[in-house]
Amino acid sequence: MIRHVDSDLNSLKDLLLTMGGQVEKSLSRLDDSLADSDMKSLQEVHEFEADINRLHLEVDESCLVLLAKQAPFASDLRLVQSVVKINTDLERMGDLIVNVASSAERYLRFTVRVLPPQWGQMMEEVRWMVSNSLNAFVKLDPALSKQVLKHDDIVDCHNTDLTGVFKERMKSQSIEIDAGVEALAMVKCLERLADHSTNIAEEVIFIVTGDDIRHGRRQSV
Amino acid sequence: MIRHVDSDLNSLKDLLLTMGGQVEKSLSRLDDSLADSDMKSLQEVHEFEADINRLHLEVDESCLVLLAKQAPFASDLRLVQSVVKINTDLERMGDLIVNVASSAERYLRFTVRVLPPQWGQMMEEVRWMVSNSLNAFVKLDPALSKQVLKHDDIVDCHNTDLTGVFKERMKSQSIEIDAGVEALAMVKCLERLADHSTNIAEEVIFIVTGDDIRHGRRQSV
Repeated sequence: MIRHVDSDLNSLKDLLLTMGGQVEKSLSRLDDSLADSDMKSLQEVHEFEADINRLHLEVDESCLVLLAKQAPFASDLRLVQSVVKINTDLERMGDLIVNVASSAERYLRFTVRVLPPQWGQMMEEVRWMVSNSLNAFVKLDPALSKQVLKHDDIVDCHNTDLTGVFKERMKSQSIEIDAGVEALAMVKCLERLADHSTNIAEEVIFIVTGDDIRHGRRQSV
Repeated sequence: MIRHVDSDLNSLKDLLLTMGGQVEKSLSRLDDSLADSDMKSLQEVHEFEADINRLHLEVDESCLVLLAKQAPFASDLRLVQSVVKINTDLERMGDLIVNVASSAERYLRFTVRVLPPQWGQMMEEVRWMVSNSLNAFVKLDPALSKQVLKHDDIVDCHNTDLTGVFKERMKSQSIEIDAGVEALAMVKCLERLADHSTNIAEEVIFIVTGDDIRHGRRQSV
């Protein structure tokens, strides 16, 4: 027998995943644009924002309706509460991707220097984390979530590395201060994207197991 | 007659406000430390983090228990869903304050230059916004929330202004690149603190009126 609550929960998950798909597409467009230093394509990244914002409002409203109509409990209730939080993460990820695009537009006005190879490596890791945090949510897979959490350490290393590269370039005056400041903002946004992916992964673990591992609690679970 | 749900909602609000109080204390300690360039006092800012993180988990758990036990509806349900979101904002605000303290510790190692007067002005605005977004939540006051939203424009101006000041100082080599990068990170964190205050203010409007004004929707309300 299919419960009404199952049908509503599946619709809610689908809506959240539509939003996640838009975040992934936006990030993919950003990555391609930066690989080609393509200003026109970079501007297209902004076009995803309106859709992500619309879905942000729609997901929150759907959660409220589901809670009022179905009064879910146990893992169903955890799922809805986690969707409210993942929704906030995805909306912020959409903003961060737009922020990288805006900084990149200014960066490319200040310097002809292409981004260093470490940028591509960091972007690849972040895209993997974003994609697999969403996969973990689709499959409600705590093991994949734990993989996502581990990858955050790799992103943190790239962050430290790239921050050092751009500071050195500013010190040696091989790029202008304005360009360096924009590049550092871009790196910071990528690092934040990875952080939001870890938030999603932590929520998946909570939905499935009921264990809240945030702030280092029950990390061994 | 006092409903059980009222008693539980009041306890939840009190818990969230305890967390808000810790965020305010942490920001006050940061402000005082920076005004005195006091390294020892700066380190004390980190001491609030554990308490804020503990309350973060506790608030989320209380929301889940309240939803399961009481199945609230209408404005009571909106309140609980908004508390889930405000809780995320407050936790992030705690992190941002710690990030400013960490950057400030490095800044003060790189340069003896005091922060420019615009820093104090921006900090004062941000403290006003943090404090009054929480007051708006206590009183469930949409008019005060709208005042908070207006102040965000002032913070954005200070952000642009201060970013320009530190970039100029780096260009003229009156501070080192390392110091300038830390100062810019501090300014960015303050701007993000103001953004989280606007999130709280928007949630208060939603709790009271049911109008979701985020992403420019129904701004005239």
